[in-house]
Amino acid sequence: MVAAEKVIMTKELIAEQYQQIQDEICAGLEQLDGKEHFVEELWQRDGGGGGRSRVIQNGAIFEKGGVNFSRVEGQLPETIKNALKVEQQDFFATGVSIVIHPNHPLVPIIHMNIRYFEMESGKAGKPAMKWFGGGIDLTPHYVFEDDARFFHSKLKAVCDDFGGDAYHRFKVWADDYFYIKHRHETRGIGGIFYDRLTATDEHSWDDIFTFSKAVGRSFLPIYTELVNRNRNKPFTEAQQEWQYQRRSRYAEFNLVYDAGTKFGLETNGRIESILMSLPPQARWLYNYQAAPGSEEEKTLGLLKKGINWV
Amino acid sequence: MVAAEKVIMTKELIAEQYQQIQDEICAGLEQLDGKEHFVEELWQRDGGGGGRSRVIQNGAIFEKGGVNFSRVEGQLPETIKNALKVEQQDFFATGVSIVIHPNHPLVPIIHMNIRYFEMESGKAGKPAMKWFGGGIDLTPHYVFEDDARFFHSKLKAVCDDFGGDAYHRFKVWADDYFYIKHRHETRGIGGIFYDRLTATDEHSWDDIFTFSKAVGRSFLPIYTELVNRNRNKPFTEAQQEWQYQRRSRYAEFNLVYDAGTKFGLETNGRIESILMSLPPQARWLYNYQAAPGSEEEKTLGLLKKGINWV
Repeated sequence: MVAAEKVIMTKELIAEQYQQIQDEICAGLEQLDGKEHFVEELWQRDGGGGGRSRVIQNGAIFEKGGVNFSRVEGQLPETIKNALKVEQQDFFATGVSIVIHPNHPLVPIIHMNIRYFEMESGKAGKPAMKWFGGGIDLTPHYVFEDDARFFHSKLKAVCDDFGGDAYHRFKVWADDYFYIKHRHETRGIGGIFYDRLTATDEHSWDDIFTFSKAVGRSFLPIYTELVNRNRNKPFTEAQQEWQYQRRSRYAEFNLVYDAGTKFGLETNGRIESILMSLPPQARWLYNYQAAPGSEEEKTLGLLKKGINWV
Repeated sequence: MVAAEKVIMTKELIAEQYQQIQDEICAGLEQLDGKEHFVEELWQRDGGGGGRSRVIQNGAIFEKGGVNFSRVEGQLPETIKNALKVEQQDFFATGVSIVIHPNHPLVPIIHMNIRYFEMESGKAGKPAMKWFGGGIDLTPHYVFEDDARFFHSKLKAVCDDFGGDAYHRFKVWADDYFYIKHRHETRGIGGIFYDRLTATDEHSWDDIFTFSKAVGRSFLPIYTELVNRNRNKPFTEAQQEWQYQRRSRYAEFNLVYDAGTKFGLETNGRIESILMSLPPQARWLYNYQAAPGSEEEKTLGLLKKGINWV
């Protein structure tokens, strides 16, 4: 008899699998675009670690999209030390982060992130704190209810495999997180968001790691479907203008509220990777009012917390 | 003998004079544009006061420009109370705030602000704290050294009338304030910035009020000259693209660092007035590098603190 090999979840393994997910997604998106390829840049961080930034621009489908992997380590930055209220310690963080701005106004913007963080306790091999975070959310320039139901039902399936009321909890979390307070509107139709997931009686570390990978791997089939549903629809110049206006809200969210962006800006991260989420083209019109009864007004009416899509 | 009439500097008088300055500037800018007019919106603030927002869009010169006056009062918002470390009190704030985005890439973006703030002590007629703040700064899409020298020498003249080393102090303050930390570049070529100016042995309240009005009234002749120097120059599509890229840096500064914008977003201000400073059209390209020896590269080289323009 041979004992079943038990795979130990290490930070090395997590980084390796995340990198694998980045590869799968980039290959799939290139196939979907059919015209442009990702340009890769390898970067190193002063203080430890680095990443693989991959950006696609001016594609057939993707006007600007980034699929970034990073794996950074070293001394905890001052701002994080203060936020976590801990003494100076070594940390390790790895993740995959995606934002895609499509050319077509009827194809939605999408964002996905999976990440793992740990901090040493000073005792060899024993991290003091560790957790997983992540999520996927969708920002249609025009909300199509069928697409929204499809999107949320797919995320629910991933969460249901994880178990319990995960979908409900993470969906509410996304509604709260992806909220543009000063506009009183959600960034899009939400999705799922979770942070600081740690092992419990219900979920082992392996369960959480498996869930994290499942979230990462759900991205490509979901977005492929949403692209294919809408990419061949005709659209007007006015719809393109509206797309640029919606993108300006996306920029507002990312620059004012997004925790990852703030973290990056405050810790002197690689600026082009942090801000690759910003739209290639955006418009701020003064005091724009959607015409009563228009598709634009309908979309604004659906940018609210608490809509049940499944 | 008749005693010379002494004008008492009251908050009412300050607000009235600021409103007058708004009128003068709007009239002058409309004349300069020659095509479009400002659209005015009067608004009221829950909790006290209100303002006159005036926006010009799609003019011959001005793609989007706002000249706002506000005069608000009431209970100090929670965030400000905490920042100032004071108990709940009544406050009063009035100011004029301008941002202009021109159509022409060789005409610069400009910003001007004059403001007055006071807080009651609880004793009738005796404010516990009061101060003036303000400034003017210029953001050329392309830095022309002659224009930069003209701009700074005019501001120096206004500061020299105020006395002492005001220009030097306020110029350094602007360099530090209008700085996009994460880009390691200044927003433009700076100008002057000052805050919390209070009466001293050197300057009475009347001196400071006079200076505040002089800053406000310097705006129109300075900007008129800069517009007229550049409005008829030919320009290329590539220069327009560069303009849109520079505007994205402007949006980054305003959304990430600008104190007035943060204050407005956190205190539930009138969002369209607060964000009227954002560009009508902006572009974020990934990892753009200016061509060696180009005008774009030269401009980037001049977006630094500590350049002496006079």
